[in-house]
Amino acid sequence: MEVAKGLEGIYAVESAIATIDGLKGILHYRGYNIHDLAEKSTFEETCYLLLYGELPTKEQLKEFEIKLKEQRELPKEIVKLIKILPAEKPMSTLRTVVSAIGLYDKDADALGREALIDKSINLIAKLPVIVASIGRVAKGEKILKPKKGLSTAANFLYMLHGKRPDKFHARVFDICLILHAEHELNASSFTARATASTLSDIYSATTSAIGALKGAWHGGANEQVIKMLREIGSAERVESYLREKIEKKERIIGFGHRVYKAKDPRATILERYSKELAEKAGDNGNNSLYQISKKIEDFMSSQQKLTEKGIFVNVDFYSASVYTYLDIPPSLFTPIFAASRMSGWAAQLLEQYADNRIFRPRAKYVGAEERNYVSINKR
Amino acid sequence: MEVAKGLEGIYAVESAIATIDGLKGILHYRGYNIHDLAEKSTFEETCYLLLYGELPTKEQLKEFEIKLKEQRELPKEIVKLIKILPAEKPMSTLRTVVSAIGLYDKDADALGREALIDKSINLIAKLPVIVASIGRVAKGEKILKPKKGLSTAANFLYMLHGKRPDKFHARVFDICLILHAEHELNASSFTARATASTLSDIYSATTSAIGALKGAWHGGANEQVIKMLREIGSAERVESYLREKIEKKERIIGFGHRVYKAKDPRATILERYSKELAEKAGDNGNNSLYQISKKIEDFMSSQQKLTEKGIFVNVDFYSASVYTYLDIPPSLFTPIFAASRMSGWAAQLLEQYADNRIFRPRAKYVGAEERNYVSINKR
Repeated sequence: MEVAKGLEGIYAVESAIATIDGLKGILHYRGYNIHDLAEKSTFEETCYLLLYGELPTKEQLKEFEIKLKEQRELPKEIVKLIKILPAEKPMSTLRTVVSAIGLYDKDADALGREALIDKSINLIAKLPVIVASIGRVAKGEKILKPKKGLSTAANFLYMLHGKRPDKFHARVFDICLILHAEHELNASSFTARATASTLSDIYSATTSAIGALKGAWHGGANEQVIKMLREIGSAERVESYLREKIEKKERIIGFGHRVYKAKDPRATILERYSKELAEKAGDNGNNSLYQISKKIEDFMSSQQKLTEKGIFVNVDFYSASVYTYLDIPPSLFTPIFAASRMSGWAAQLLEQYADNRIFRPRAKYVGAEERNYVSINKR
Repeated sequence: MEVAKGLEGIYAVESAIATIDGLKGILHYRGYNIHDLAEKSTFEETCYLLLYGELPTKEQLKEFEIKLKEQRELPKEIVKLIKILPAEKPMSTLRTVVSAIGLYDKDADALGREALIDKSINLIAKLPVIVASIGRVAKGEKILKPKKGLSTAANFLYMLHGKRPDKFHARVFDICLILHAEHELNASSFTARATASTLSDIYSATTSAIGALKGAWHGGANEQVIKMLREIGSAERVESYLREKIEKKERIIGFGHRVYKAKDPRATILERYSKELAEKAGDNGNNSLYQISKKIEDFMSSQQKLTEKGIFVNVDFYSASVYTYLDIPPSLFTPIFAASRMSGWAAQLLEQYADNRIFRPRAKYVGAEERNYVSINKR
């Protein structure tokens, strides 16, 4: 049997959560088109949909939002931990803090559906708060208490910036959270499920997922996009920069995806908001972050060889400029991805625990034949 | 295409590290039979073999051992963390502490072979020290400094018990570490590789592996074996206890393995030491831990239906009594497994980073068809 490197093309699980049509660039959560959700739903409602499989009634949504708001507050031990841990590498701090949360849950090993839903809501509520708190510590500023009156998105921006956000900013950030919430069996969700499959707890699985998301080929990419935009610096440098990269066969961050062979629908939505934010911020020139981004995308689309191979803009590309317009530092881009994706991880973990089989593939042996142990004196 | 549930039978990677002949009950590390390594090698030498692929010369081993000893000492921030974190769930504490170690490595994201080997040696050196320290905190005792004059195994027992161990005990524990060091693409090694495959760092990968190992169907089993032995309590209760379990189709902890359809060779070795330790401890009666264990194994072997299905004793079964004779509390059994397996994880991570492809399988969609978003007022 052949080695399925990267498990490409292998169905590892059945799932009723997300579908991706990679050729047409279509993404659904629970049967709902991502364009509809971005336009009409909220992050809270999307979380409900992901966890329970159906859109909530008014009553259900209200109850769900109350739970989320009540569970935002971090235990004092966790606040203390965030203060004493280094904040320069927020993904590693987040990984450590989420692992620690499991230590303070006396019932951490409970794997029944109800217990898991409670723990999921708790983690969905707390991750944005942890990320905002890490962001404050990184800036040398005081950690703020969450505000119950605000949505998840607005509360995050408030806790990070120390002031209530502009309504449009809060709504754009809400949409960003919706767009990043779930994406079928991506590497971090797969790792979460693999960890859970030994019947380990939800904190182990989430910690694994955060670790996987951290990688440059997964969530870590959005932080690198902004570096590239800054490095290019002006619209006129776009073409020469990209031609050089392509010639050297270097990877262009923000382009390409294992599944999409068309424009990522999330990028289409984010592009629109990047443009709108640029306009509102008065960043209108040729060298605005939005214009540089757009020019990169246009140049890449014009490269027939690349588009034939299916290298299209992905979700990371426009999220970089959007977050920058929202005054979010690059080191928090990937942690925000984690805070949003927590909802998708939770939904997938519910599936995994409900119908579990331990992930235990085989390795094809290509090493030394059987050999005799020679005593160290004779080596 | 079919769903490969649990990825059973799928080759997910090529590897030159371990081979298992599940039908014959044979295990090799780098071509060397596990019986030879248990009898003739040391844990340090085995770690060298796993990392570098060859047995070391005298010089190489000496240098390697010096590095391991020098890196045992924990940074003061890590000692502080171990003191303030709860110690009642040592696997969760270990997961958190290892994640935190990555925060204090300024060069954590380096993925070149040399950097990875340095980080591997550091983790192999530190994990046993962390586990012993957690064990001390759990007992309400002071954390001790590691002793450079002692082997990994002897230092662990010293740090846990506060006195230099008996030579035989140190040697048996050394063998336990050898036996648990590596086991092909088990769930925790696979999870480690999946996490690393996004180009995340070795701390993320190791944290994932610890999380996966924690599960009751993986490393968590050895802790449950001792519970079962205590529950049974006497040799004469073995048969009725097991008959009841089998009738109810309950899983018998310490038996069965995805790959072995024969007696696990590691169990054969551990059984011998369980017996010897029982004799030395004067635990000779019919109701000694060893005798109860032996009786369980004998009864299980006599159950033709089970042995036809291939339910044989596995590594977790006799490690429980061995560790108990070494005066190690059950809550540390799985953390010790992690401290040993760190060497195997490191070897596999070296392979993964050297020839990486992101693990991104697909999920077969079994959910709702495309549906229209209905406004919340109309639900």
